[in-house]
Amino acid sequence: MNDLSWPTFGAWRERQQQAVEAALSRWVCADAPAGLGDAMRYAVLDGGKRLRPLLVLAAAEAVGGLPEAALRAACAVELIHAYSLVHDDMPCMDNDVLRRGKPTVHVRYGQAQALLAGDALQALAFELMLPDDGSLPPAMAASLCRQLARAAGGQGMAGGQAIDLASVGLALDQPALEAMHRLKTGALLQASVTMGASTGLADAPTQEALRRYGASIGLAFQVVDDILDVTADSATLGKTAGKDAAADKPTFVSLMGLDGAQAYADRVLGEAHAALRESRLPQADHLHALADWVGRRTH
Amino acid sequence: MNDLSWPTFGAWRERQQQAVEAALSRWVCADAPAGLGDAMRYAVLDGGKRLRPLLVLAAAEAVGGLPEAALRAACAVELIHAYSLVHDDMPCMDNDVLRRGKPTVHVRYGQAQALLAGDALQALAFELMLPDDGSLPPAMAASLCRQLARAAGGQGMAGGQAIDLASVGLALDQPALEAMHRLKTGALLQASVTMGASTGLADAPTQEALRRYGASIGLAFQVVDDILDVTADSATLGKTAGKDAAADKPTFVSLMGLDGAQAYADRVLGEAHAALRESRLPQADHLHALADWVGRRTH
Repeated sequence: MNDLSWPTFGAWRERQQQAVEAALSRWVCADAPAGLGDAMRYAVLDGGKRLRPLLVLAAAEAVGGLPEAALRAACAVELIHAYSLVHDDMPCMDNDVLRRGKPTVHVRYGQAQALLAGDALQALAFELMLPDDGSLPPAMAASLCRQLARAAGGQGMAGGQAIDLASVGLALDQPALEAMHRLKTGALLQASVTMGASTGLADAPTQEALRRYGASIGLAFQVVDDILDVTADSATLGKTAGKDAAADKPTFVSLMGLDGAQAYADRVLGEAHAALRESRLPQADHLHALADWVGRRTH
Repeated sequence: MNDLSWPTFGAWRERQQQAVEAALSRWVCADAPAGLGDAMRYAVLDGGKRLRPLLVLAAAEAVGGLPEAALRAACAVELIHAYSLVHDDMPCMDNDVLRRGKPTVHVRYGQAQALLAGDALQALAFELMLPDDGSLPPAMAASLCRQLARAAGGQGMAGGQAIDLASVGLALDQPALEAMHRLKTGALLQASVTMGASTGLADAPTQEALRRYGASIGLAFQVVDDILDVTADSATLGKTAGKDAAADKPTFVSLMGLDGAQAYADRVLGEAHAALRESRLPQADHLHALADWVGRRTH
């Protein structure tokens, strides 16, 4: 990744973010009754880096994927991410009051509505990838939904959150910490990449290389997250800083120190770039740039 | 529906319930980590009438549907139902401690684990209908998932729950009460019927007749539920009796009295039978019997 391409990447990123924002605004139903639609839109719109949608769109671009399928998959992944944040912020979980610089959904709409909004967002994620207008080939839609269901469920994101709950106060070693994050945040980030690739044609070695790229992105994202939790303030993060340390949660920083964690993040991102090069995809520039973006992010 | 067929129906019902129980036990992953799998299995196994799976299986039978698809759809619908109960019982919702005669999931496993178990069960419902072994035609799998996502989401079950939350203490009239229940419980019951029909071939008039049958079943189920809430005790119901009245929630009994509600349930069930007759399906005996079963249930 050459720094000279950053202006180009920045323009691409903003264009894609706007497309995702517009699509989410169109597809997240304000017409769900009794205020539920409002809570769902509040949870999803006007915030977030949209890293997962960007990974879907960049991977789709790299394999020449179907644009309509890629946009729907990008939004679906973001809805799963958004619902997980709504539930994760609830008092019985992390009990957080600030998210993306705004009061969390349960603070704004009450716990019951937050619970329902999260539930409805998960259902909507699948519905989005199953339009009945014939715009997505059924086999592609089925594959996308299968990957998303696995990444979100008990052997994916939800399973990782369960491990996280059970780990507070425990002295996890690095393999255990990585196993937790591979599920908790890694599964959905990796699925973003493989789902994007599923909107086009990719041979088995390319798919395998993209899986490794996705796994490295997932791990690097979490290491950087742990670094930011101790180095950034709440205003920059848009969420409560220092909460992992306060909750006595094991992190990459508590395990390997700040410098060690930064070096580790760099090494893992190097592996992401290497996997991409091995994929021999001709249009992988934005996937390379997204790896750097994950490494350089400040919130 | 002739009473003479009841022994036959009873045997069919038990056989199907056993098949569903065995399939759920096989498919609800005990291997989700950190106790999550245990909480998921606790929420799903050894309880419940399995009315929704029975509707799926009877509708599939009536149209000569694919057995593997029908069993997967039956279990998927039950997982959505089970997750909704887990979340609905939580302190921020109905705050219920007893379900199917056992402590509710959040009482047994804690609120955080209950929240995650519900989330993971919803994802698993979709995953179940998307096996990657080619046993379900992709177009059928996509159609099943689409129907389930719509029935579960903001314009279906979750939307109905939001209306329910907003209705406590309000004097809903009958159309408003029915509109709420059409979403809250009706959408999933109706989807059970239409999903079963989607595992085979049914022409448009048959599908429409089955939709009306499903809608009537959904409405009758709720009217009977309201009747049982005031006539049955907690031990028989396996959940807390009288809680709707205690919560000052509008019900069909509060609106039309006990006798009026019973007469209404009978009339709606008559409409279910009439819709079935109009469907001209040759093998609709078990769908007829399920309508009567809904009307006669004691818990």
